[in-house]
Amino acid sequence: MNRETLSYQADGLQMKSELFFELHSAPRPGILVYPEAYGLNAHALSRAQKLASLGYVALACDLHGAALVVEDLGEAIKMLTGLYADPSKTRARALGGLRALKARSEVDAARIGAIGFCFGGTMSLELARSGADIKAVVGFHSGLATVAPKSDANAIKARVLVCIGGDDPFIPPAQRADFESEMRDARVDWQLYVYGKTVHSFTNPAAASARRPDAVRYSPDSDRRSWHSMQQLFDEAFA
Amino acid sequence: MNRETLSYQADGLQMKSELFFELHSAPRPGILVYPEAYGLNAHALSRAQKLASLGYVALACDLHGAALVVEDLGEAIKMLTGLYADPSKTRARALGGLRALKARSEVDAARIGAIGFCFGGTMSLELARSGADIKAVVGFHSGLATVAPKSDANAIKARVLVCIGGDDPFIPPAQRADFESEMRDARVDWQLYVYGKTVHSFTNPAAASARRPDAVRYSPDSDRRSWHSMQQLFDEAFA
Repeated sequence: MNRETLSYQADGLQMKSELFFELHSAPRPGILVYPEAYGLNAHALSRAQKLASLGYVALACDLHGAALVVEDLGEAIKMLTGLYADPSKTRARALGGLRALKARSEVDAARIGAIGFCFGGTMSLELARSGADIKAVVGFHSGLATVAPKSDANAIKARVLVCIGGDDPFIPPAQRADFESEMRDARVDWQLYVYGKTVHSFTNPAAASARRPDAVRYSPDSDRRSWHSMQQLFDEAFA
Repeated sequence: MNRETLSYQADGLQMKSELFFELHSAPRPGILVYPEAYGLNAHALSRAQKLASLGYVALACDLHGAALVVEDLGEAIKMLTGLYADPSKTRARALGGLRALKARSEVDAARIGAIGFCFGGTMSLELARSGADIKAVVGFHSGLATVAPKSDANAIKARVLVCIGGDDPFIPPAQRADFESEMRDARVDWQLYVYGKTVHSFTNPAAASARRPDAVRYSPDSDRRSWHSMQQLFDEAFA
């Protein structure tokens, strides 16, 4: 497994992202991995590494700049206030990662996917709404709301899959319904998978550190199932 | 591929179901396949055959008795009026198939799953609500409503996956929401997958014969994706 730090400017920040890849004889599909609101933590790094072991070139993307990781969820979300209010900032950070990944000779630039967790899921969706030339997006416990014009979804080229906890208090049914309408109106190839007995951060084994088990909790079942569905979507998108 | 007709009584009817299996050295998991409202048609038969080729023993179950297949959807649904009103009749027909399948020496009776399409999906869910000892249920464009007490869901032992078209006029968002509540309250291991650009009967290549493309239409993408998710659920349920 190779690991390399990629530095680039995005949204006025100096980003330090981590590239994972194994050696292949031909360029491989590239996957952007956007972390939870905390920033580029162990969870996102481990998922990028896992993707690399599956044959992808994976870039675990910096979120806050300088690879800053914030421990407290409330504080992390506070740092993102400007981004929730202005998707163009979110898109700029996401696009920085896309450019850096596409520039790599190990990557088949015609076969790029993006995944993200929590705010990182929102980031992957905003990247798609920006019209970026990507083939697939998977958002895990991904915020589905946007203040961008709904019509931005018309620009989506990617297949979209969002994987949501059925009891996630941050992504209530009304937000899911709005997202469905947005995707439907734009004729996107979309899928929404809802997992029972599941709340926020269900893919993160360290979720308990948030000390809010009613709202933020790891679920081995939903993690395994959603990861598998992601692989399935990539298989068809990159075939 | 072996094919055998199994005859049994259920809900006062003489059922003629079709068993598909290949030869194995040990008993294999058994899958019940409940057809769309039309009855035991080519679609359900082909899915049972496909399951047998994957290593399962699959019983494509008769619905109306005497293997009757009705061509007109409206007429078929009319024949089911009594079942919509009384889930115990639906359960009786479903249980007849379960008993017949479990009695076969080719089947590992401790590893049974059920799938169904349209009303057959409802049937597989009612089988689960009856408390039957089955490991997994997958409903494809499956009616989610029931007039049984919501508390019947407490009896569910199976993992439950329902695969629904996002634009299915027969399974509107409110019905999905009720189903979520039912599953949530009963602490079922449930999943609800919603497919964009998809209406009813999306697994049936012959759906066009209903001549209602706005409401009843085959979708190769959603068919392939949901079938794969079913396989995934069986893999974990029978591991």
